[in-house]
Amino acid sequence: MFGNLLEPEIRELIAAKNFSALRDVFAEWPPADLGELIVELPVTEQVVIFRLLPREVAGETFEYLDIDTQKALLQAMGQEDVVAIINEMSPDDRTALLEELPPAAVTQLIRLLSPEERAVAQALLNYPEDSVGRLMTPNFLAVRSAWTVRETLDFIREYGEDSETLNVIYVTDERGKLIDDMRIREILIRPLDTPVSEIHDLNFVALTVTDAQETAVETFKKYDRNTLPVVDSNGVMVGIVTVDDVIDVLEEATTEDIQKIGGTEALDDPYLETPLRSMVRKRAVWLSVLFLGEMMTASAMHFFEGEIQKAVVLAVFVPLIISSGGNSGSQASTLIIRAMALGEVALRDWWNVMKKEIFSGLCLGGILGALGFSRIYFWSFFTSAYGEHSFLLGLTVAFTLLGVVLWGTIAGSMLPFLLKRLGADPATSSAPFVATLVDVTGLIIYFTIATALLRGTML
Amino acid sequence: MFGNLLEPEIRELIAAKNFSALRDVFAEWPPADLGELIVELPVTEQVVIFRLLPREVAGETFEYLDIDTQKALLQAMGQEDVVAIINEMSPDDRTALLEELPPAAVTQLIRLLSPEERAVAQALLNYPEDSVGRLMTPNFLAVRSAWTVRETLDFIREYGEDSETLNVIYVTDERGKLIDDMRIREILIRPLDTPVSEIHDLNFVALTVTDAQETAVETFKKYDRNTLPVVDSNGVMVGIVTVDDVIDVLEEATTEDIQKIGGTEALDDPYLETPLRSMVRKRAVWLSVLFLGEMMTASAMHFFEGEIQKAVVLAVFVPLIISSGGNSGSQASTLIIRAMALGEVALRDWWNVMKKEIFSGLCLGGILGALGFSRIYFWSFFTSAYGEHSFLLGLTVAFTLLGVVLWGTIAGSMLPFLLKRLGADPATSSAPFVATLVDVTGLIIYFTIATALLRGTML
Repeated sequence: MFGNLLEPEIRELIAAKNFSALRDVFAEWPPADLGELIVELPVTEQVVIFRLLPREVAGETFEYLDIDTQKALLQAMGQEDVVAIINEMSPDDRTALLEELPPAAVTQLIRLLSPEERAVAQALLNYPEDSVGRLMTPNFLAVRSAWTVRETLDFIREYGEDSETLNVIYVTDERGKLIDDMRIREILIRPLDTPVSEIHDLNFVALTVTDAQETAVETFKKYDRNTLPVVDSNGVMVGIVTVDDVIDVLEEATTEDIQKIGGTEALDDPYLETPLRSMVRKRAVWLSVLFLGEMMTASAMHFFEGEIQKAVVLAVFVPLIISSGGNSGSQASTLIIRAMALGEVALRDWWNVMKKEIFSGLCLGGILGALGFSRIYFWSFFTSAYGEHSFLLGLTVAFTLLGVVLWGTIAGSMLPFLLKRLGADPATSSAPFVATLVDVTGLIIYFTIATALLRGTML
Repeated sequence: MFGNLLEPEIRELIAAKNFSALRDVFAEWPPADLGELIVELPVTEQVVIFRLLPREVAGETFEYLDIDTQKALLQAMGQEDVVAIINEMSPDDRTALLEELPPAAVTQLIRLLSPEERAVAQALLNYPEDSVGRLMTPNFLAVRSAWTVRETLDFIREYGEDSETLNVIYVTDERGKLIDDMRIREILIRPLDTPVSEIHDLNFVALTVTDAQETAVETFKKYDRNTLPVVDSNGVMVGIVTVDDVIDVLEEATTEDIQKIGGTEALDDPYLETPLRSMVRKRAVWLSVLFLGEMMTASAMHFFEGEIQKAVVLAVFVPLIISSGGNSGSQASTLIIRAMALGEVALRDWWNVMKKEIFSGLCLGGILGALGFSRIYFWSFFTSAYGEHSFLLGLTVAFTLLGVVLWGTIAGSMLPFLLKRLGADPATSSAPFVATLVDVTGLIIYFTIATALLRGTML
């Protein structure tokens, strides 16, 4: 917000070592804006700024930085600052950082934590990768059914400081088993002597600590919650997950989908930060696989070399025809992949989709076929390129387009179903994958129709 | 959750008109699960269930239904039920419904609202489409700086009932101007006689009512908030936006991006609910544009018909070559489009991206070139298909692949920048669009290299 505006002045103040002025400037900034300013600065100046921030603000600002900036900063900071910051970070953001560090660095950092924070960090890292346990924070408040609203509010006032959020208060029994969740509003709008047992409906939604993170995303979307409790296999409450962490998971999953649709393995890192080597490797694998598949087009073309020899003009339309099949196929597969990701289309809908796609394919193929026929037939009045059989040639191309587009839409829409049925990720049926699949069959359709229609005239 | 499990029993109870049993069953269900059950039932049974729900639960359950189910239900319900439900809905969800209805139906529904709710609904509908105003709800609580924590809590207890959330309490001056936002935790952990003025830091993040909804998404992501206040142009607070509505906007924007990447206009409705006509229209437009562009390949092929006549084997590799260019181009464009959507790559990064893509393109082109050369050269020992000049033919294909893949990655990665620079949506540079662009140039590269390398031998 103000980051870009003030950056030059800030850098001047740093150069002039005017620390008291800097301290005043930063006192008013929200941590998110501080984070935005800091990433623009060289790491030595980042370290200076962190030393000037109050301990708590420093911890929160650090959480807003991306993991790579965090890593660089930790290496550049003195041990004392590192200790302050990693002890101040909230447990879920700390897990996200530790996940990305090499094991030796993790051991080193964990040693710098206070005994209490160390136990928390280690417990969280023990949960499997991509599980809800890695997203959660164990800082929450739980009260008992027998308490009144007044007792609850007193308890919050005394112990609420460390809780990540007070928007939801949990009710547990004496063994820590989750009984209910109450939105803070339920408590705040009730008379002070209302017993908690009167508020709760014993009706809650919880995640299990070993659930996949994608389950968490779906549960959040379904129930429109900001926070969800996490329980272990005995129903004992162990933490909470907040919606901001879930949005990150959602964006990551969508990015993977999009990258797969584009025919690459998921990059895992932001584009500019992905090292060239791994970028090339991730793209080369798919590109080579597709290339090997596409080699079958050369075999198909070989097979029809005799026809091409007799009527070279047939070769002229090959790119037009196979690309139309590929385009209609990638339209269809992309629509279905996204609809599946949003839960709009399930496996059992395949027949509905098939019907819809057959109809769409016929319409689209008909439109392209008409365009293709017009181009060939009408141009033949102005050029001799198509020879005397331009009407038949036009018909050949038109029927081929109808067939190829129909086949493209059917193949493109059914492939995601097939992959999902086989337990694979539907997004793997990328636009290039579908195009490759359709190319070979497109050639066969083309030359078969040509042989049938043009035998005795051009062939 | 329990929806699928119980559906048959529920339907039996409905058939048996056992309403008291139904009422008991539903009393325990969260509205999200009720919503999930209801969409599975025929509309007549949906109406029955809604009559059985307590008024408040009915309103909330209705909000969980998709817009189409909502529309069907409103038509099937008696006027009395409609009145109950639309008066009970929260203003933001009601706006989302009204947006999708024909004007006559909107007028009719608005007439059924209580005078108070009617004023609210009309005010919200007056904001421009896709603006923050259409997302917000005017139900929030604001307190004054001079109050104490105790007075604030008393105020909340008395007037908090109607507020959409109590997670954040706002501080306004006597003219309604927003002064600060306080998370409820800031209030709850302070001693009761703390003045509000001591809590607030006069440092808040707010949306403006005319902001684009995408601005709201970015602000939520940047500041990790669950709720943001909305002010008018004078800084007067007029409503709040909650994160669940913003997730919906985010998903919609991503869906549009993905559909464009796949080479379709955005569908706007879920796949299965999009009418065939509009589905075909939205796909036909792009497919026809691409087809017209692709016709240039026919012209290019015509231009080289003499070469093909002399060496038909050249035609054999055309599909392989143009598809490799298309695939590498759609990889590049997809990666860049997504990186732009996530804010990882900005316009000014174009040169960094270009450098990275030139290097990637050379590597990827080299790999495919080597694969292509091997295939032609080594197979020539086993087949006579490539004639005596298989080494030169192999070199031609290899150099062409290098050139085509390099060109594909450069074109694919730069097109989104160009589109963005021109003020268009980068996602328009869909995989099929890039492929079409690369196909024509790919042919020219191929035949130019062939003419140079094979003159005097095959040509």
